[in-house]
Amino acid sequence: MRRSSMFLYTRKEVSSEADVVSHQLMLKAGMIDKLAAGIYTLLPIGLMVIENVKRIVKEEMDRAGAQEVLMPSVIPAELWQESGRWDKYGKELLRIKDRHDRDFCYGPTHEEVITDLVRKNVRSYRQLPLNLYQIQTKFRDEIRPRFGIMRGREFIMKDAYSFDVDDQSAEESYRIMYEAYHKIFKRCGLNFRAVEADTGQIGGSFSHEFMVLAQSGEDAIASCDKCDYAANMEKARTDAKRLASKPEDNKGLESVETPNKKSVEEVTAFLKVPAGRLVKTLIFKSDNRFAAILIRGDRQANEVKLKDIFAGNEAVLANEEEVKKITAAPSGFSGPIGLKIDIIADNSVKGMTNFVVGGNKKDTHLINVNIGRDFEIKQFADIANIEDSDPCPLCDKGHLKIDRGIELGHIFKLGTKYSESMKAYYTDAEGTEKPMIMGCYGIGVGRTMAAAIEQNHDENGIVWPIPLAPFKATVIPLNTNHEGIMEVAEKLYKELTELGIETLLDDREDRAGAKFKDADLLGIPIHLIIGERGLKEGKVELKLRAGGEKEMVPVDATAARVKAIIVEAI
Amino acid sequence: MRRSSMFLYTRKEVSSEADVVSHQLMLKAGMIDKLAAGIYTLLPIGLMVIENVKRIVKEEMDRAGAQEVLMPSVIPAELWQESGRWDKYGKELLRIKDRHDRDFCYGPTHEEVITDLVRKNVRSYRQLPLNLYQIQTKFRDEIRPRFGIMRGREFIMKDAYSFDVDDQSAEESYRIMYEAYHKIFKRCGLNFRAVEADTGQIGGSFSHEFMVLAQSGEDAIASCDKCDYAANMEKARTDAKRLASKPEDNKGLESVETPNKKSVEEVTAFLKVPAGRLVKTLIFKSDNRFAAILIRGDRQANEVKLKDIFAGNEAVLANEEEVKKITAAPSGFSGPIGLKIDIIADNSVKGMTNFVVGGNKKDTHLINVNIGRDFEIKQFADIANIEDSDPCPLCDKGHLKIDRGIELGHIFKLGTKYSESMKAYYTDAEGTEKPMIMGCYGIGVGRTMAAAIEQNHDENGIVWPIPLAPFKATVIPLNTNHEGIMEVAEKLYKELTELGIETLLDDREDRAGAKFKDADLLGIPIHLIIGERGLKEGKVELKLRAGGEKEMVPVDATAARVKAIIVEAI
Repeated sequence: MRRSSMFLYTRKEVSSEADVVSHQLMLKAGMIDKLAAGIYTLLPIGLMVIENVKRIVKEEMDRAGAQEVLMPSVIPAELWQESGRWDKYGKELLRIKDRHDRDFCYGPTHEEVITDLVRKNVRSYRQLPLNLYQIQTKFRDEIRPRFGIMRGREFIMKDAYSFDVDDQSAEESYRIMYEAYHKIFKRCGLNFRAVEADTGQIGGSFSHEFMVLAQSGEDAIASCDKCDYAANMEKARTDAKRLASKPEDNKGLESVETPNKKSVEEVTAFLKVPAGRLVKTLIFKSDNRFAAILIRGDRQANEVKLKDIFAGNEAVLANEEEVKKITAAPSGFSGPIGLKIDIIADNSVKGMTNFVVGGNKKDTHLINVNIGRDFEIKQFADIANIEDSDPCPLCDKGHLKIDRGIELGHIFKLGTKYSESMKAYYTDAEGTEKPMIMGCYGIGVGRTMAAAIEQNHDENGIVWPIPLAPFKATVIPLNTNHEGIMEVAEKLYKELTELGIETLLDDREDRAGAKFKDADLLGIPIHLIIGERGLKEGKVELKLRAGGEKEMVPVDATAARVKAIIVEAI
Repeated sequence: MRRSSMFLYTRKEVSSEADVVSHQLMLKAGMIDKLAAGIYTLLPIGLMVIENVKRIVKEEMDRAGAQEVLMPSVIPAELWQESGRWDKYGKELLRIKDRHDRDFCYGPTHEEVITDLVRKNVRSYRQLPLNLYQIQTKFRDEIRPRFGIMRGREFIMKDAYSFDVDDQSAEESYRIMYEAYHKIFKRCGLNFRAVEADTGQIGGSFSHEFMVLAQSGEDAIASCDKCDYAANMEKARTDAKRLASKPEDNKGLESVETPNKKSVEEVTAFLKVPAGRLVKTLIFKSDNRFAAILIRGDRQANEVKLKDIFAGNEAVLANEEEVKKITAAPSGFSGPIGLKIDIIADNSVKGMTNFVVGGNKKDTHLINVNIGRDFEIKQFADIANIEDSDPCPLCDKGHLKIDRGIELGHIFKLGTKYSESMKAYYTDAEGTEKPMIMGCYGIGVGRTMAAAIEQNHDENGIVWPIPLAPFKATVIPLNTNHEGIMEVAEKLYKELTELGIETLLDDREDRAGAKFKDADLLGIPIHLIIGERGLKEGKVELKLRAGGEKEMVPVDATAARVKAIIVEAI
């Protein structure tokens, strides 16, 4: 492509809205244009990157035996009512009425449509396993779209759905996708981790998120410094045994006055004990049922884990009046002893001895409290967020490190959630009808582009991994009015293009400095700089965007050298 | 692809809803699945054809210098309000409210979005000409979606938009697209015509439709049997001079009684004159203004032409009461003589002499009426539909032939309609601000697939033009339990796949007859049939779907032979 005729306009300043680096750089590099909140046009150079991601995704999906379809974006409400999600999904579902006042939605995900398609076509175990995928535009009406296309409302996604006869086969389908995802993100040139994840709104048996490590990531990921364990915060566990302090002999329970001391900080400072010796008692209400949640004083409850405790229902802290009714004391003095409601404790409480709790009486706490002797716990559960350096739950030696990450892919073993509610049954070899076991597998295509920038940039702009780069090389003639320079520039441009290498010829009559700045900003991996001095020796300067290494290459050897660099990287 | 593991299920019977052959065959061949009225999932074999069309379109658009972008499907109302189309577009525009109750629509076309994008980026004549395109999913909420994906609600379209500094340059951009469209439809293997067309709702200066000839086409196309003239019915003209009968000397005007004779048939039968000697007088009302439209008795008014007469406003026939007020007679007896309203006559009336008209009096007609002597015509215009065999308006000898066609592409010279209403101005070399001259260019991608089937099928199924065929070849082993047969089948499948030829290996354990039927239904161009008898001589049978020619080819020469057939066709 010739820069002079390309619809590509870089910018020095961009809207102050753009608060993550990928969003800023995409705007500066002329890759995207904002049409409305969370809704963007992909401009030519942006679309070229998207097409690179799509091609890699498609090749690996095909290789993994998945078959491509294209489902509609506008989905009739009936299917979502059948699965029960029409009422559950909330405002992120963009609901539409057509001219006949019939209900539709703009699909944010396609479990219902694919399940309907498969139940209409698959009757026998002989037709399974099956994996269908699409690369398609979706819409999620985020309340606060942000970070450009990273968390947009309209976005491009690859979604695949597998159908199997039994759990074993479904897990094999899952494993194949797990491996395909590794290949995809590796081929994209990204540094990523596959982490155990919560199954969230979709529900099902187990799942992994594929996270690209980047400081700006919205998600925290815990990973072991010794073994392969990695999980996001909703799922990350620690080893309660290794976490627990050494048990002490039980001391006698005592009541102490703690006038106006309510928070963990106030109470532990007043009593001169570390926060880890206190057990918080939080009264939660969910579905009109109350429960006391015990957590070690230096730990915080994780909302998603909490929701799991209450069987997926929203749980809220009881209000002052409810706390008073249940504990006979104002909040800040709640404790487990004597409560008539269920007591559920985080694993971090396990093995604690002689700890502090609220006295269920104004201005009173109890010390030297012990489980079993003073009160019973109905259930231990994983409720608290892990903290940096917590012991790894898998290996004996490792500790967890918390990184920031961006979720690019999510794979789920769904089980029979949709096949049962929507009656996607097959007949097995014995003639018995059974629900298919499903899996679903998503990749954010636009988000992959954004995350690649978050992970690969410097103060001058983007540093594309070669496989994703819109142009692999750019030819920069230092003086477009110099015949010899332009002759070589055109020759190289032609040679590279004929080799199938996407090349940008910067044929603008502009200062060399401006062209260098643009080439850096756009993140083109290989810069070929053609100047008078080099040409005297029959050479051009080859500069690598990543690392900045420079070498002088004979004109006739340049195209081959560029090809070699690319082949090595892809 | 191996047929045994492909998500491909052919059907013998399909819904009675499917009333055109392409819709029936797409359902039978397992190419599409209906999700809702006018909303379809593209199944693997259908999507493969779509991808072939997209690839050809993309290659030719790129070659023509257009640059690909991807605009959002969900468009904020503000832009449509700016262009004035938010109120004009009617119910085909799928309107959406987001969670904040803001108005959006699902884009049926993207003039507003592209104009907004270009005005934000282009300021100078140096940045023009420019042509941007996208291949994208659109939605038009048709009141009666029908013919499968031919006239669906959600559909894939290529739309391109050109921006130029002046008319001359804009017409050059138009010409480039006109030629690119010829290349695209030629490469798709279709028999088509480019016809002059009405500019319809989009408005603008001139336009062509690209029509694939097919009996089931919804549109009628007139084309000359001698020269290149072709136009659709809304636009087709004839040569009024050659159409007119020889003028006679004016005879004396006479009033005749025509009791209860109202229709053209009744009056001309009663008076024993041909319908071509009568002039119908139709009273139309548009925007509260009345006008009399005169048309030769054997001709019918064309609605679109009529609308043009009334400056684009809807025109309706006046009701009985209004006719009485204007003509002083019941309808059926209206005539031009003595009317106080504008009289506009179709060109077919030009040169008529001694004709019959209504008497503006009950049960009365006038004969031997002559223009000029008896009444004046304010304006002659092109109002009536042309008829088969009408004289060509361009050449002296030809006559028009009416064919049926399916519109696959439409190119418009838009002019400044959008650039003026949305202020897309550039500064010319003299520093003057001017509106850009726009063009827009659409291709229905899904419809191209459907039209290709309409044009290429027989009683056994689809007969794909090779460039569009999902699989170019199918390998059919007559007996999957025969080791020698399967060995050759696998060998050929491997060789063809390695040559980059999309091949379907029908490895199902099924009767040969069923496999032949399927291969015919799916329309795969080259069938390679492997049987015991042929193998004894080391040969396989190569059968062409189109024409049915068969030849025996040595196994080792088969792949090369297939390749040669494909290369010749593409």
